[in-house]
Amino acid sequence: MTEPFDLERVILTNNQAAFNRWVGIEVVSAQGGQSELQVTWKEDLGQYAGFLHAGVIAGLLDTACGFAAATVVGNVLASHFSMNCMAPAVGSSFVVKGEVVRAGKRQAFTRANLFAISPDGSVKHVASGETILLPVT
Amino acid sequence: MTEPFDLERVILTNNQAAFNRWVGIEVVSAQGGQSELQVTWKEDLGQYAGFLHAGVIAGLLDTACGFAAATVVGNVLASHFSMNCMAPAVGSSFVVKGEVVRAGKRQAFTRANLFAISPDGSVKHVASGETILLPVT
Amino acid sequence: MTEPFDLERVILTNNQAAFNRWVGIEVVSAQGGQSELQVTWKEDLGQYAGFLHAGVIAGLLDTACGFAAATVVGNVLASHFSMNCMAPAVGSSFVVKGEVVRAGKRQAFTRANLFAISPDGSVKHVASGETILLPVT
Amino acid sequence: MTEPFDLERVILTNNQAAFNRWVGIEVVSAQGGQSELQVTWKEDLGQYAGFLHAGVIAGLLDTACGFAAATVVGNVLASHFSMNCMAPAVGSSFVVKGEVVRAGKRQAFTRANLFAISPDGSVKHVASGETILLPVT
Repeated sequence: MTEPFDLERVILTNNQAAFNRWVGIEVVSAQGGQSELQVTWKEDLGQYAGFLHAGVIAGLLDTACGFAAATVVGNVLASHFSMNCMAPAVGSSFVVKGEVVRAGKRQAFTRANLFAISPDGSVKHVASGETILLPVT
Repeated sequence: MTEPFDLERVILTNNQAAFNRWVGIEVVSAQGGQSELQVTWKEDLGQYAGFLHAGVIAGLLDTACGFAAATVVGNVLASHFSMNCMAPAVGSSFVVKGEVVRAGKRQAFTRANLFAISPDGSVKHVASGETILLPVT
Repeated sequence: MTEPFDLERVILTNNQAAFNRWVGIEVVSAQGGQSELQVTWKEDLGQYAGFLHAGVIAGLLDTACGFAAATVVGNVLASHFSMNCMAPAVGSSFVVKGEVVRAGKRQAFTRANLFAISPDGSVKHVASGETILLPVT
Repeated sequence: MTEPFDLERVILTNNQAAFNRWVGIEVVSAQGGQSELQVTWKEDLGQYAGFLHAGVIAGLLDTACGFAAATVVGNVLASHFSMNCMAPAVGSSFVVKGEVVRAGKRQAFTRANLFAISPDGSVKHVASGETILLPVT
C-alpha cells in the first residue's frame, strides 16, 4: 500500500487528469474515506438529449470513489465499476459524494452518489455507483 | 419504441456528443445489433499513470453498447452500466465492440469489449462492460 | 402496478418459496420501502470452507431487496442483481436489511446489506447487494 | 495460488456443498477454464410465480463461474457477482456454462450463461452472470 492522500494531493491528482479538467471537476473535500466533487453544467457535457453524458456520469462517480479510497489506501487501480442511472441527469450543477464502504489489503469497496442541483437550488438524487479498487503495492 | 438507427444516424449521433468528439470516437460500423468504435490514443485520455482514464473507458464501453442497441430498438436511455478493468488500458489505439445480447420491449441487454492495440499491432483484451438500456417510448 | 404488499403478504410470499424455507429466512419487518430478514446459521448453508454459500448470500440480498420493493410497488420481477462479498460471511446468525433507493413506474432500484452476528453479539458488515426490479403490470 | 482443480475435484466440491445438493446441481464438465452444469426443474426451485428463484439462478451462475476459475487458479473466494435476468427462467431443465475471461494473480474474471430447456428440447438464453474471484493464497 502507498501513502494515503491528503486533500492537497487529491486536488493535484484531479488537476493532472485531462478528463477531469475537461469536465471541470472541482474537489470540494477529500478525507477520512469520504470525498465530494462539484461540477457546473455546460453543453459539452451532454448527450443527444441534453442530459449529462453517461461517460461523464461514470467518470464523476468513479472519480469520487477513487478519491475517497485514496484518502485511506493511497494509489489505486480500477477493477470493477457499476452505476445506476435512476433519473435524467439534468441540472445547472452537480455534486458527487464518494465514500469507502470497506478497505482491506487486497481490495477497497467504495460507493458514490450523484445529485443534480436545479437553478432554484432543489436537489435530486439521479445516479449511484460503486467501485472495487486494488491498492497499488 | 422509436425507429432503429442506420449507420448514418449512429455517426450523426456520435458527432453530436461533445464527449465523443473530445475523446475522438470514430464509428467503424453499426448494424444488426453490433457496433465497432475506434479511438487513437492521446495524452488527454490518460489518468495519472498514463493508462486510459476510467471515465473514458466507461464512456467507450457505454457508447458501443448504446449504438449496438440503437440499431435494434432506436433511441435508448441508460439504466445500468458496469465494467471490469482486467488489464492496464495502454495502447496506441483502441477498438471497442458492442453487441445486443437480448432486446425486449421494456429493456435491452448489451455488452461490449475494449481492446488495446500496440504500435506493433498486437491486440489485448483489457476491459469488458455491459448495459441495461430502456427503449424510449 | 399491482397493490403494494403489507407485512402479512410479505410473510406469506416468503413462506411460499421453498428456497426461503430451506434457508430458514424469517421476515422481521417490511414496510415503507424497507425490509429486514433474519437467518440462523446451519451447516447446510455453507460452502466448502464453512462460509455462507454465495448462492445463499445472493438469495438473501435479493430477497431483502425484493420485499423492500414489494412494499412500494407490489409484485416485481428481477432484472439485474449484483453483490459485493467484502468479508467472509461467518456468524451464528445473519441479518439482512433492504431498502428502496428509487421506485419509478418502469423500474425500482433497491439495495441491501448483510450483517454477520457472532455468538458474542458483535456485528460485522460482510456483503452488500443491489437490484433493479420491474414492477409487474 | 493453490493447485488447479481437475474434474474429479470439482465434482467432489460440488457434492460437499449442501446448497448444490439441494438444488441438484450436476457437473457435466470442468476443465481448461470452462465449466458446464445441469439441473432438472423441481417445484422447490421456484419463486411465487413458478419461475426459477433468483437465489437459485444466482447460485447456478456463481457456481459455474467458480468451477471454471478453479480449473485455472485453484481455490477462490467470491468478491463480486452480478447477473442479468433477461427472460423468465422456465424450463424442464437448465444448463449453465461458465468460462474464465481473464485470470491473473490477484483476480480472476469469469462469466456464465443460463439456458432453459423446454420439454420439446428448445433452448432459451434466460440469464447471464459474471464474477470477480480472488485466488486463495
